[in-house]
Order: sequence, then structure tokens, then C-alpha cells
Amino acid sequence: MLEVSQRGHAMPLSPYRRLTPFADAAKQRGVQVHHLNIGQPDIETPPVMLAAVQQANIRVLEYSPTAGYPSYRRALARYYQQVGISVTPDDILVTAGGSEAIFFALMSCLNPGDELIIPEPFYGAYTAFAVATDVRIVPVTSHLADGFAPPLIEEFERRITPRTKAVLLCTPNNPTGYVYSRAELEQLKDLCVRHSLYLLSDEAYREFCYDGDYVSAMHLSGADDHIVILDTISKRYSACGARIGAFVTKNKALQQTAFKFAQMRVSPPGLAQVLAEAASELPDTYFDHTKAEYQARRDLMVSRLRAMPGVECPVPGGAFYVMARLPVDDCDTFCQWLLEEFSYHGQTVMLSPASGFYATKGLGKQEVRMAYVLNCEALGLALTCLEQALLVYPGREVPVPEAAFDQDR
Amino acid sequence: MLEVSQRGHAMPLSPYRRLTPFADAAKQRGVQVHHLNIGQPDIETPPVMLAAVQQANIRVLEYSPTAGYPSYRRALARYYQQVGISVTPDDILVTAGGSEAIFFALMSCLNPGDELIIPEPFYGAYTAFAVATDVRIVPVTSHLADGFAPPLIEEFERRITPRTKAVLLCTPNNPTGYVYSRAELEQLKDLCVRHSLYLLSDEAYREFCYDGDYVSAMHLSGADDHIVILDTISKRYSACGARIGAFVTKNKALQQTAFKFAQMRVSPPGLAQVLAEAASELPDTYFDHTKAEYQARRDLMVSRLRAMPGVECPVPGGAFYVMARLPVDDCDTFCQWLLEEFSYHGQTVMLSPASGFYATKGLGKQEVRMAYVLNCEALGLALTCLEQALLVYPGREVPVPEAAFDQDR
Repeated sequence: MLEVSQRGHAMPLSPYRRLTPFADAAKQRGVQVHHLNIGQPDIETPPVMLAAVQQANIRVLEYSPTAGYPSYRRALARYYQQVGISVTPDDILVTAGGSEAIFFALMSCLNPGDELIIPEPFYGAYTAFAVATDVRIVPVTSHLADGFAPPLIEEFERRITPRTKAVLLCTPNNPTGYVYSRAELEQLKDLCVRHSLYLLSDEAYREFCYDGDYVSAMHLSGADDHIVILDTISKRYSACGARIGAFVTKNKALQQTAFKFAQMRVSPPGLAQVLAEAASELPDTYFDHTKAEYQARRDLMVSRLRAMPGVECPVPGGAFYVMARLPVDDCDTFCQWLLEEFSYHGQTVMLSPASGFYATKGLGKQEVRMAYVLNCEALGLALTCLEQALLVYPGREVPVPEAAFDQDR
Repeated sequence: MLEVSQRGHAMPLSPYRRLTPFADAAKQRGVQVHHLNIGQPDIETPPVMLAAVQQANIRVLEYSPTAGYPSYRRALARYYQQVGISVTPDDILVTAGGSEAIFFALMSCLNPGDELIIPEPFYGAYTAFAVATDVRIVPVTSHLADGFAPPLIEEFERRITPRTKAVLLCTPNNPTGYVYSRAELEQLKDLCVRHSLYLLSDEAYREFCYDGDYVSAMHLSGADDHIVILDTISKRYSACGARIGAFVTKNKALQQTAFKFAQMRVSPPGLAQVLAEAASELPDTYFDHTKAEYQARRDLMVSRLRAMPGVECPVPGGAFYVMARLPVDDCDTFCQWLLEEFSYHGQTVMLSPASGFYATKGLGKQEVRMAYVLNCEALGLALTCLEQALLVYPGREVPVPEAAFDQDR
């Protein structure tokens, strides 16, 4: 019998994908769908970067070197220096998006069956990468009530077994927006040094911290061999479609190992490296505008959400996501209902049910992730849809009148 | 102890990489190195394709859909129709180069420990993909003396075990240039149907057949569920750096499985899809010139090689490689010596030792692969270097005078 592989069967279908047909059907019916469900910003890709591709004088679009164009790796090293990350071009392997950096990290650091500790909720694709590389994710739960601060270091420590090889964190965090403090990172670094673990740090949202300074795992000292930064230009320059990322480590043996996996696919995308390199032409003030824009959206979203009865959300310090608790029975059902049955003035909203961000079954049932990737006007309309929907959704929590408590006493 | 993974240790370093430092050192000494070692054509990328990228009106470089832009998938389906391959856009998953198509195929068709039969010599990166996906390559040897025709079907059949899941072929072949006949493909197809195996067909060099018609695995009938085409625009349009390929199958379950692996990395490169889509603007005669150019180079290379004492090579029917037997002790040593110790009028030549193309240890020791990716003038100079080198290389085979045989009789 001709069958697909068991690992193919085991691969998850993204939760976003499950809702797509309902969104498409809503659009078919003429309903306008506001997309808060994916991290695809509406911010324009810097024209100077697009112009570099347009002006590139290419006769033959050749393979780039496996690790990326030397000129781009030098430009990237300069960028890292500017954000206080002291690396050389040799410490950088250019990848096809942050995705490939994650893949190379899991392949290079862990063997089949090894364990990877990740604070949950976490970026859903980590699960797919773990299945593809036969790595076991061991979640440590963070909670909405604590603003999704990382769990106590003891919680990490007690999950370490002889099969544990790495801790994977994401700061600023997708999906929670939490920004790790230096003290929290130091604790995790010490843990990794103590137990000979790699510390994999996904820093895709580095530029977007609103309430304080950003700390990178590579700002820490004394653990160079342990630390790998998984990076991407997707969010930084609103260039998700370029597929340019980076695997960054000062651990020579690990860098050489990742390089062997990179050789397999010959080279990262060529045109997109030209685009990425031109980021060095951006003025120092480039991120000021983008950050201010995202911060205004965050503030709008948080204040609107907090004004809705029964909705709870922490103020996320970074990235462009808000995780909120909604007063509904089940957010998977609710998000589908929003697309299938609800509309308000011909509009509705698409959200990400949080269940896809938790490894522990049953968690996140009342939570959603919302990406503030729309301008404030569109965001306002989207949030009005949510507000109205929560008033009429059949599975909404009915607030218990205070009198009910009195009778029980 | 902080260690890299065992699978990382097991990953091969490309044989090309081993020789690179010697080539770099030769260039440092002022020696001109003619590169016949890699399949990086000097043919220009069609200006109309590059112009499409320059003229693209992009405000936000967004993620493309996971399977590729619908417009590009439609254009690609039309291209396949033109070459007699009847597929719809739904049968096509756009990938980051042919490399990613190979990766998705191994992940979707085989489980860890499963066996993949491949005629050797074969493209070196297959070994890397097999290690990365924990698949066991079972080689079936083809021979220079037979022009690298595929082994008898019985040879394939007797290697089939309960763990065999697929046969991987490459036509026109890298590294041998052999073009499979319809009869040979039919035999392999029947074998795959009989034993419930996938037939993975790497057709990166489809356009470059010089002595007869090209037959694709998808030209065969009655085995749609078994056949997967692994494709790329790298060689077709001399656009290796674009990193655009395709995973093509009419097997719905398999396509959906590959799609799940594709979702993990969100989308294929965006700018390069714009480039690739513009191939539809090329005139029907586009390949005529390129083919004529490659054919002239092939003919030059084969005639020059055959004029060198002790050198043997078949006439490759396609792709842009020649595999030749050289009268030397060991081609790995010889290729290094060419870079380290030899020069002729300030020039030398870089070749690929064939050992990297065989899975069976010890095979290919006297063979090299040469890519005719230089224009005829440069190719002539490169072959003169080889000719001169074979006259003075210390490890050359000394022709046995005929008298020596007489004495033994």
C-alpha cells in the first residue's frame, strides 16, 4: 500500500489554516474580514530596500555562498554591533527566513528523541519543527494573570532530564508580547550553563519594545558557546516575503555544524539578500516611526479590550501581539463563529485561538491572540466587531449578578 | 558537556568544500582557476525575468501563500502543459529551490530508517538530505563503460526490502548527463507500481537534451499516485540564486502532507517568484539558443577529452556535465594537486572528484565530473590545463608498452 510517512501524518496543520476556509466563505458572502490573526504587518517595506533590488545590476543570478553574501554578512555584523551584540561575519549564517534558522538549530543541537524546554504559550510553528526534527517539546506554562512572565526558574529546572539539550525562548514574545528582563535572561543563562544546555533565543521582534530597554541573549556574558540567536528581517523591516533570517552563534563547532545543514540547500535566497543588505542605508531614526505607530496601536487595542466586560489582557511590552482572555466557552468555536455566523455592519474579525500556542492540552481555551498589524482606524473597526460579537455570541459567559452571591452567604 | 548533535556530526561536508581552500590559495598566488567543478552556468538570466522584479510594484513584501503565489502556480501549470506534463496548479507546491522539494519528498514519503534506492553516481546533496531525514540510501551502480545507462531492472528489484519506500532518479542526470529513455522509465514505473514505491524524479535539467526527446516521469500513465517531480528553475533559466523550485504530484494525500511541511516555513521566497513567473514572457525559441550553446560546449569537451591519452568518457545526452575516467591514481589527490601544485601559463582547472557522487565506498576513484558552464574559449583553456596536467602529474598511469604483454604470453 502506498502511504504517506508517519511523520507526515504527525505533522500538525496550522490552526490558522483550519479557519481559512471559513474566512474565505465569509468574504464570498460579501463580509469584510479584519485580519488580526497573523503577524503580517501593513507597514511598508522601506522603499530604499526595494530600490536596491530594482537597481541591482545582475547579469547571472548565481548561487550566493552557502552562508550568504560576504557583503551582507558584514552589513549584518555591523547591525548587530549597533544593537550591542558583538559578533563577526563568521558568527552569522544567513538563512531562508527565521524558519530555517529554527530548523538548523534543532538539527544541530538535538538528536531524535531529545527534549527542548519552551515556555508556553509559544509560536505554533515550533511544534511543526519539533515533529519534523523528532524533538520532544517540554512546555513550562506562563500565565495571563502574571502578564505571561516566564515561570520561576525552578519550574524550568525540574523539567530537565538527561535528554534535555536546549531551552528555546522568544523575546519579545510571540504570541504574548512579553519582553524578558535582563535578570530573567541571566537566570536562564545560568541554568543552561549549569546543565550544559543550549539557549536558543528567537529575537524576531527585537526592535519592538515599548516600555523599556531590549535585552538580547547575546548581551549576556560568560555563555558564548551556549547561545544561539534565531533571527529574521521579516518583522524588523516588514519584509516577511523576503525569507531572510540568520543563525547567529559564537560557538564555532555549532556554527560549522549548522553550515553543513545549510550546504544541503546550497544557498539562501539571492535577490532578497540584496534587499536585506540595503537596510544599512536606513537612517538611524527608521525604527522611531514604526515603533511609535505600533505603540499607538497597542495602546488602542489594550484600552478597547479592557473596556469590554469580562475581557482581560496584560499590557504587552513588545512585538505586535496581545493575548487576551475572552468571556466565552471556547475560543476555537468562537473564532469560527465570528467567521461563519457573525457580522456587524457587514464586517467581522479573524482572531487566532490560543489553543494552537499551548503544548499542554486544554490550555488557552478562553484565550485569543490578536496582532495589531492594521492601522488604528481598521483596528478600531475590528475591535468594535469583537465588542459587538461578545454581546451576542451564544456561548458567552453570562455575568453572575452580585445578588446571587448574597443569597449563598 | 555541550556537544553538537550526532546527526550534525554525521552530516557530510560537501567534497567541493574540501577543495575550496586550495582553490582560494591558488588564486592568492595569482593563478587563474577555471571552474568546471560546479553547476553554476555562465548563461545570463533572461533580462525579461530580472526586469519583472525591477518593475514589480511592491509596497509591502508580504508572505506569499504557503504553496506559492496562485498566479505563479498557474503560470507553472501552463509551462508543464507545454512540455506535455498534465498538471493543475493544485498539483504544484512552490519550494525554496529544488533542494526543498527533495527535503519535502523524503520527509513525506519515508520514515526514519526507511530505504531509498538511487542509481549511483548521484547528486552529492542527496546524501546530505538522507542523513538529515534519517533515510538510508541503497545505491544501484551504473557504469562509465555503459555510458552510465541505468542498471538492469533486476538490479533494482533485488535491492527492494520491506523498508524500501521509493526510487529516486535524476533525468537528465547530474552528474552523468545520461537521459533516461521512455522504456527505462516505464520499467522503473512498473517496478514502483508492483512494489508500492514512490518514484521521485529529479528533472532539474529537463530542457537540456541534445540527442533526442526528453521523457518526464509524468509522461507515463497509470501511476499518478506514485510519481513526484522534483523541479527547479535554477538551471532552466540560469537562476540558481533565486531559490525557486517545485514539488509536483497528482497524489492528493502526498501533496497535502508536503504542504504541512511547507507550512512550517510559512512561504517560499517572494521576490524570486515574481522573477520565475515572468518566464512565461519568454519566446518559444528561448531554449534553442541555450541548448545550442551547451551542445557546442559538450561536443568540444567530449572531443578534447577523447583526444587525451588514457581519458575515457561517454557522450552525455543531456544536462551540462561530463563524467570522465582519467588515467591517474586517485582523482581526489589529482584534483587537489591541480590546485596546489600545478599551473600552466598561470592557469589551472578545478574539477569535481567523482568519489562524492558514489555511495559505495571506493567507486569513482578514477573519475571526475566536469560542468561545461563556461564559454567555449574558457572551456578550451581549461581543457588545455587538464591535458597538460595529465602529462606531468606524478600519480599518472604510465601506459604499458605493448611489448610488455608479448613477454607475458
